[in-house]
Amino acid sequence: MTYIAEVKVMPLKELLDPQGKAVLNGLKNLGIDTITEVRIGKHLHLKVEAEDVEKAKTIVENACRKLLANPVMEYFEIEVHE
Amino acid sequence: MTYIAEVKVMPLKELLDPQGKAVLNGLKNLGIDTITEVRIGKHLHLKVEAEDVEKAKTIVENACRKLLANPVMEYFEIEVHE
Repeated sequence: MTYIAEVKVMPLKELLDPQGKAVLNGLKNLGIDTITEVRIGKHLHLKVEAEDVEKAKTIVENACRKLLANPVMEYFEIEVHE
Repeated sequence: MTYIAEVKVMPLKELLDPQGKAVLNGLKNLGIDTITEVRIGKHLHLKVEAEDVEKAKTIVENACRKLLANPVMEYFEIEVHE
């Protein structure tokens, strides 16, 4: 069966996020000062072939650990649905 | 009040996603061949000062149109919560 996995890969909360800081400054320069914090990460949309949801999730977790996320700087969250 | 907005900015479905294709090849090279499609976009985590959820969403939509997403190549989805 084919499952869809949505993966969020974000910079760890303890770390500075220079890209987010730059975008926050850009927003201020555009006059949008009601946005007070910006953090930027990646969003991955995956199609996974697996027998069930649990196996699909395991495949995606493995892929995150091996390639998609850098655990030194990032954490990830996975949502799997049909 | 402070609201949290989660914004997903993804390449339009009609467009090729070279970054996704590269990651898909990387996964195959690692022996992970049960993932058959990868599309990669951005995930933004924002803090917004607004009177209510609707106003917070309007602020974030405006920011997406002006800076956060490129409508020629990307679409965005916004979720706002407290």
